[in-house]
Amino acid sequence: MAVTPFDSPMIRDLLSDREVAALFSDGAEIRAMLLFEGALAKAQGAVGMIPQTAAAAIPRAARDVAIDGSALAAAVAAAGVAVPALIPAFRAGMNAPEHAAWVHWGATSQDAADTGLALRLKRCAAVLDARLGVILAALADAAEAHADLPMAARTRAQIATPTTFGARIASWGAPLLRARVRLARAAQGVALISLAGASGTLDAMGEGAEEVACLMAEELGLTAPDLPWHTGRDGLAEFAGALAILCGSLGKFGQDLILLGQSEVGELAAGEGGGSSAMPHKSNPVGPEVLLALARHASRLSGAVQEAMICGHERDGAAWTLEWLSLPQLCVTAAAACRHAGALAASLRPDPARMRGNMEATGGMMMAEAAMFALSAGMPRPEAQAMVKAACADALAQGLHLRAALEARAGADLKGVDWDAAFDPARHTGLAPVFARRFAAMARA
Amino acid sequence: MAVTPFDSPMIRDLLSDREVAALFSDGAEIRAMLLFEGALAKAQGAVGMIPQTAAAAIPRAARDVAIDGSALAAAVAAAGVAVPALIPAFRAGMNAPEHAAWVHWGATSQDAADTGLALRLKRCAAVLDARLGVILAALADAAEAHADLPMAARTRAQIATPTTFGARIASWGAPLLRARVRLARAAQGVALISLAGASGTLDAMGEGAEEVACLMAEELGLTAPDLPWHTGRDGLAEFAGALAILCGSLGKFGQDLILLGQSEVGELAAGEGGGSSAMPHKSNPVGPEVLLALARHASRLSGAVQEAMICGHERDGAAWTLEWLSLPQLCVTAAAACRHAGALAASLRPDPARMRGNMEATGGMMMAEAAMFALSAGMPRPEAQAMVKAACADALAQGLHLRAALEARAGADLKGVDWDAAFDPARHTGLAPVFARRFAAMARA
Amino acid sequence: MAVTPFDSPMIRDLLSDREVAALFSDGAEIRAMLLFEGALAKAQGAVGMIPQTAAAAIPRAARDVAIDGSALAAAVAAAGVAVPALIPAFRAGMNAPEHAAWVHWGATSQDAADTGLALRLKRCAAVLDARLGVILAALADAAEAHADLPMAARTRAQIATPTTFGARIASWGAPLLRARVRLARAAQGVALISLAGASGTLDAMGEGAEEVACLMAEELGLTAPDLPWHTGRDGLAEFAGALAILCGSLGKFGQDLILLGQSEVGELAAGEGGGSSAMPHKSNPVGPEVLLALARHASRLSGAVQEAMICGHERDGAAWTLEWLSLPQLCVTAAAACRHAGALAASLRPDPARMRGNMEATGGMMMAEAAMFALSAGMPRPEAQAMVKAACADALAQGLHLRAALEARAGADLKGVDWDAAFDPARHTGLAPVFARRFAAMARA
Amino acid sequence: MAVTPFDSPMIRDLLSDREVAALFSDGAEIRAMLLFEGALAKAQGAVGMIPQTAAAAIPRAARDVAIDGSALAAAVAAAGVAVPALIPAFRAGMNAPEHAAWVHWGATSQDAADTGLALRLKRCAAVLDARLGVILAALADAAEAHADLPMAARTRAQIATPTTFGARIASWGAPLLRARVRLARAAQGVALISLAGASGTLDAMGEGAEEVACLMAEELGLTAPDLPWHTGRDGLAEFAGALAILCGSLGKFGQDLILLGQSEVGELAAGEGGGSSAMPHKSNPVGPEVLLALARHASRLSGAVQEAMICGHERDGAAWTLEWLSLPQLCVTAAAACRHAGALAASLRPDPARMRGNMEATGGMMMAEAAMFALSAGMPRPEAQAMVKAACADALAQGLHLRAALEARAGADLKGVDWDAAFDPARHTGLAPVFARRFAAMARA
Repeated sequence: MAVTPFDSPMIRDLLSDREVAALFSDGAEIRAMLLFEGALAKAQGAVGMIPQTAAAAIPRAARDVAIDGSALAAAVAAAGVAVPALIPAFRAGMNAPEHAAWVHWGATSQDAADTGLALRLKRCAAVLDARLGVILAALADAAEAHADLPMAARTRAQIATPTTFGARIASWGAPLLRARVRLARAAQGVALISLAGASGTLDAMGEGAEEVACLMAEELGLTAPDLPWHTGRDGLAEFAGALAILCGSLGKFGQDLILLGQSEVGELAAGEGGGSSAMPHKSNPVGPEVLLALARHASRLSGAVQEAMICGHERDGAAWTLEWLSLPQLCVTAAAACRHAGALAASLRPDPARMRGNMEATGGMMMAEAAMFALSAGMPRPEAQAMVKAACADALAQGLHLRAALEARAGADLKGVDWDAAFDPARHTGLAPVFARRFAAMARA
Repeated sequence: MAVTPFDSPMIRDLLSDREVAALFSDGAEIRAMLLFEGALAKAQGAVGMIPQTAAAAIPRAARDVAIDGSALAAAVAAAGVAVPALIPAFRAGMNAPEHAAWVHWGATSQDAADTGLALRLKRCAAVLDARLGVILAALADAAEAHADLPMAARTRAQIATPTTFGARIASWGAPLLRARVRLARAAQGVALISLAGASGTLDAMGEGAEEVACLMAEELGLTAPDLPWHTGRDGLAEFAGALAILCGSLGKFGQDLILLGQSEVGELAAGEGGGSSAMPHKSNPVGPEVLLALARHASRLSGAVQEAMICGHERDGAAWTLEWLSLPQLCVTAAAACRHAGALAASLRPDPARMRGNMEATGGMMMAEAAMFALSAGMPRPEAQAMVKAACADALAQGLHLRAALEARAGADLKGVDWDAAFDPARHTGLAPVFARRFAAMARA
Repeated sequence: MAVTPFDSPMIRDLLSDREVAALFSDGAEIRAMLLFEGALAKAQGAVGMIPQTAAAAIPRAARDVAIDGSALAAAVAAAGVAVPALIPAFRAGMNAPEHAAWVHWGATSQDAADTGLALRLKRCAAVLDARLGVILAALADAAEAHADLPMAARTRAQIATPTTFGARIASWGAPLLRARVRLARAAQGVALISLAGASGTLDAMGEGAEEVACLMAEELGLTAPDLPWHTGRDGLAEFAGALAILCGSLGKFGQDLILLGQSEVGELAAGEGGGSSAMPHKSNPVGPEVLLALARHASRLSGAVQEAMICGHERDGAAWTLEWLSLPQLCVTAAAACRHAGALAASLRPDPARMRGNMEATGGMMMAEAAMFALSAGMPRPEAQAMVKAACADALAQGLHLRAALEARAGADLKGVDWDAAFDPARHTGLAPVFARRFAAMARA
Repeated sequence: MAVTPFDSPMIRDLLSDREVAALFSDGAEIRAMLLFEGALAKAQGAVGMIPQTAAAAIPRAARDVAIDGSALAAAVAAAGVAVPALIPAFRAGMNAPEHAAWVHWGATSQDAADTGLALRLKRCAAVLDARLGVILAALADAAEAHADLPMAARTRAQIATPTTFGARIASWGAPLLRARVRLARAAQGVALISLAGASGTLDAMGEGAEEVACLMAEELGLTAPDLPWHTGRDGLAEFAGALAILCGSLGKFGQDLILLGQSEVGELAAGEGGGSSAMPHKSNPVGPEVLLALARHASRLSGAVQEAMICGHERDGAAWTLEWLSLPQLCVTAAAACRHAGALAASLRPDPARMRGNMEATGGMMMAEAAMFALSAGMPRPEAQAMVKAACADALAQGLHLRAALEARAGADLKGVDWDAAFDPARHTGLAPVFARRFAAMARA
């Protein structure tokens, strides 16, 4: 059964991600919470808060005891949280009541659940970082390879002036450089243990509580925060935002792939187009479409995580539950987006002939600005502008190439103008090649 | 594995709904699409568009052939849609190539997928309608039973003037009466077959296409729309909105249960409070919190469905995919909310003593308006208002009950005033009992 | 000063709407609330609840007294609501203390504010309905005029098979037919007076309260609800949803105009393209872009209105305030979208030559399905499908037109096939012309 | 006229912020864009790209020429962007055609608009940073002052165990420490000049373009980015997210103020409560409610800015326009929230008696955990837990204080237990005082 594509065996290879989804399985969640219990006991043993024997037995059991999430279902539904159902099951599974009594000593459910989440968010961030590395490497290679390949820039859905394909690739990659930094920073903000006890005061733990926290954090590869974060969920919201922004940047990549791959544009193919038996000429932009859909989904989900910041008192069950509904699927959304983007970035197939053809189809119009600058070498700029404008009107009215219209109108005045240069897109790509190579260098740094 | 609580065996009894979730399983989706193929073939046989034998065999196979969604995964990932993977599997599963060739004749993937969705949305709406009926019946009983039970109304988190518990219940129920109408209407708008072919023109089907559509619709218990809805997704957005609005109204119910069940208020219990072994006095409002969380999640998801209306040309893979990510989980969200609300509505346990006590704790202040009206029988209203204001100040300064302060200040002037009446909350509930009983009558109509 | 484009003198003609924006000016809000006070007094006079003289004076003053919103600013900021600042100002402005004392008798701030809102939402809905009428009339004319004009349908950003421009227009218009019905229904749900008093019980008004409500509703052209709606905000959420859905459908219209107007597609112009002096060939799709932006903005705002349903107790200042932040700008968003859509719908300028050219540029590929159906008249369908598939491969490999490739491959077998018909898009538009004319008829009904 | 509270003279002191709103007035926007033009000309003069005289005249005019935004309205509506309307007006206003011709040389509209935005976002961030400083200073003082003041912690709307008011204050302040860092970082990411020309290549500017960019950036106090950001809007989305997260944390502050200020809780007052003449006992939590409403509004707006990242090609008018609709009002939303939060933080008035009273009203139940730990000094923990559980049941059944029930049940066994200590909340606040003082120290660092 699968309400969402993230868990559907049929559709998950399209919209989910097996690696990151696995982090959010019941089994992984249970294991992560048991790791918290194990690390807690070990640390409490080290400071003499609980008996050494229990402190040795609990971490071992936390790795070994197998607990079936579905067996906890009724208790979870009653408590509204998994931990109160998990702890007794874990204690029972240990088969050592004398040690089991020391499980979860002084902690609260939210400590276990949030630390368990943190462990998995940290791993999720690492997976995403690695995938961003792959995407960036592929884009760097492509940006360099096509740094000088002229193509039409389009602004507001209209062909504007020339750029290069490499510069376009750089425009996709530059936000991903920042996304990587942003994600790493946001991951630090959530890679925290939670250990604050029933009301955020650690009262039940007495002396040594903060030392326990430090030892636990070290054991789990997390940080011990200066202050409890039971109700300070801004770090989660920042993490969610970083994922949504990453997805947004990949959505722009997808959007461009769709636009450049349209039948009438045909300048770029990437990935494996979904075919159609009835329409053999079609190559549906499956991957790019998925990027767009995931980006929009991510934005909504990150809004929910943001909203969960607004909580009441020392613990708010409603706000907390909202995180469970939204944050895990947001992680998988981002992972799926990175997976698709990696495949697309590694398979960019520009069509230089179509790029050239689309530029030529403007009848020289896209070079109007260049022509104006060329003219303004020999006449005041306002005059040059007026002449080009008039020539454009001529060209449109008479179906001429702009160059012909300009030559007709300008006549002998313009002997010195290098029309070949003015109308050659490759000579009017400005800093596009520089930007392409700069991005490549930055991505490789 | 379960990325969302909707599919997690561990947590689904808290946040998901087995009955509606089952409608969105891979198996249910596949069966619904095959029912489309069966109904299509049957209708095409009836108008002579395909051979009678195929027209008889295909519907039978559509009910019988078992297809494993996970076996389609790779093909679904390649095509970006399930249908192109499903059709060959179905044809193969029929074991009758001569009939199989007529499967899906003239239809397009979106026809099968959207009709399959419509079948399930219709059933979802029926489930929700039935549950709303249950909730409303319980609220009607409670509203009537407690129509006259006085309690403090709170405005802007402050005790205001008296109302009755029945009127509060009516305020929860009234939006659900409208939600039921809204949902039924929205369900009509999506209970449509889709049959428009590759480009929305049914060209491949030739003559008789619209007759086929009408026959199919009848067979499937759906409506044949006047015009294709491949890109006209407003009906889905309206349906999503109806679900989100329903969840919002249930969220308000949950919010109030939380507020009235706070330790310091203690006027109302409902459902089974989640206990805590370390804190035996606690009765956590699990169900009400879930209602709040689901309401906020629903709002975000309905936004995504709205956004999917913005699609390009005759089919937009990105917008369509966004629906798959959001709409099924929205349906389950609404179902889970109705399930919890039903249990809560059936178990409302007001505490009249606490209600009375909370009113008394205001020291008569909450009756200030009533006192002012009582006074204004014997003096101009502005004077009455001023006197009450002064008495309130006295009461606050001297720690008096407002009645005592008023008597001290007003003295002999006010002999005729019936202070017992003025300060009796039960005599100042206005139309609250009327509203409670009116709601009950409307809910039962 | 103008934080939003809705109020910016510089940009409001692009993104705002003067007519609907005027409904939400401070002056209009104040007047609407005073109309509530006037109608209340008149009705209370009619049932003998307040003196006749006051009942006559207050409505007159409500129309005449001028109150400057900015003079209320400090008091509004203190109270968090405008009404407590407005009532004293109105009373003072009346210059008749004996009547003024009866202003707002038994009502609460939310009654005045919500009724004032309802008056304006009703007018907003009427403006939108009229504009939808204009848009639909223009689209109906265009759909009929171009019912048979062949153009390529595009699915998933790829040219698919033929349709007609009229059918595309019908796809834009059909959701607007439903939007109009939806809006009218939603408007009924908010065109309500609010009269429930401090705590929703009308206690202060005593006997006759409901009669007052009925009279007031009649006076104001609104409906008196069966039950108070202080906290039942589902009607507002439905109204907001109807606006957002309307904007979404107009967003799809805008999206298509942008896509069809791209330089490389060039099949459709509409409105006045924003030019560029440096790039004279450009015709920026200003109006269509605005439609898209407004649609996305509307979706977010409607989410906020939905969320405001989740309120606590008998009045929740936070939830209510959220409505003020979002709902008025949503109304103006919808109005601006309708304004732009009307101008665009009235100026659709298709380019039949480009439409034909784009179809021809597929080298017959877009007719592959038609060719397959033509072939299947003389051979089993699977064979026909295989032959077309092979011919497509030939065509792509050898740069042939599909027709030539098919003739080469099929040879003498296919003498009977009418290739001219098979490859003529105009003969393969299926029901597109029917849909176009059907929409036109429905829009005119 | 004012569609939103941000621009309404009547309500802006409640929901807007004059200082930050002023940054987004038409006048401020125009001036900021002219500053771009001035800095561009100055830099171009410095590298010899335009005549020195023009390079001197243009910056001067950029500071002096007054342009009325409303006079540009028609041209802005036609172009869809303000700059093409502004440049001619500026040129005309210069009254020096020979210099005016060099205005905007080689730049594009988006360069001017985005740089103009960056200038104002940077100032907005500075305002917010200063206000955060004020809020944090007030919270630090309060946290220290009340570090040891015992109060009940509430989890899931139920009184849990003791904490201190100082710790609660620390929980409000800790996220603001992070918000300040986050905001500063996000501000760096948007404090960028934009200078990329028509298609993002700076082609029209020729050699020296990047030197111009560096000089301009220095002049304007902004950074010159490595790569153009015409379509790389992740920085804006991060900035928007930082604002929304800040608002979310302030929303939690507001939520808690509302909850703690409820009539039945009464532990905390802050700000000036909005009074009610009819209900003199009420002190409406105006400021806290506004914080909540602004937080929810901010979340939706930041979603829109996120979504605007998804843009097509080298410039996407629709996505860009969406930013104008959402980002400025988000800035003002955050500023208004900070303004209210500052006033509230500076006026926190806890009521220690009510705090004590609410704890006592639990009849010792909130100390059950402490009692259990006290007991477990003298018996195995499971036994202690069982005994406390039984005593709680006794207490509830017989209306006893938990201490009495325990003494009755435990009898002579428990001579050594220090019941006074066990049931004294002040001795069970754990690390709460430490956290309070730690926060204060961090806030002052």
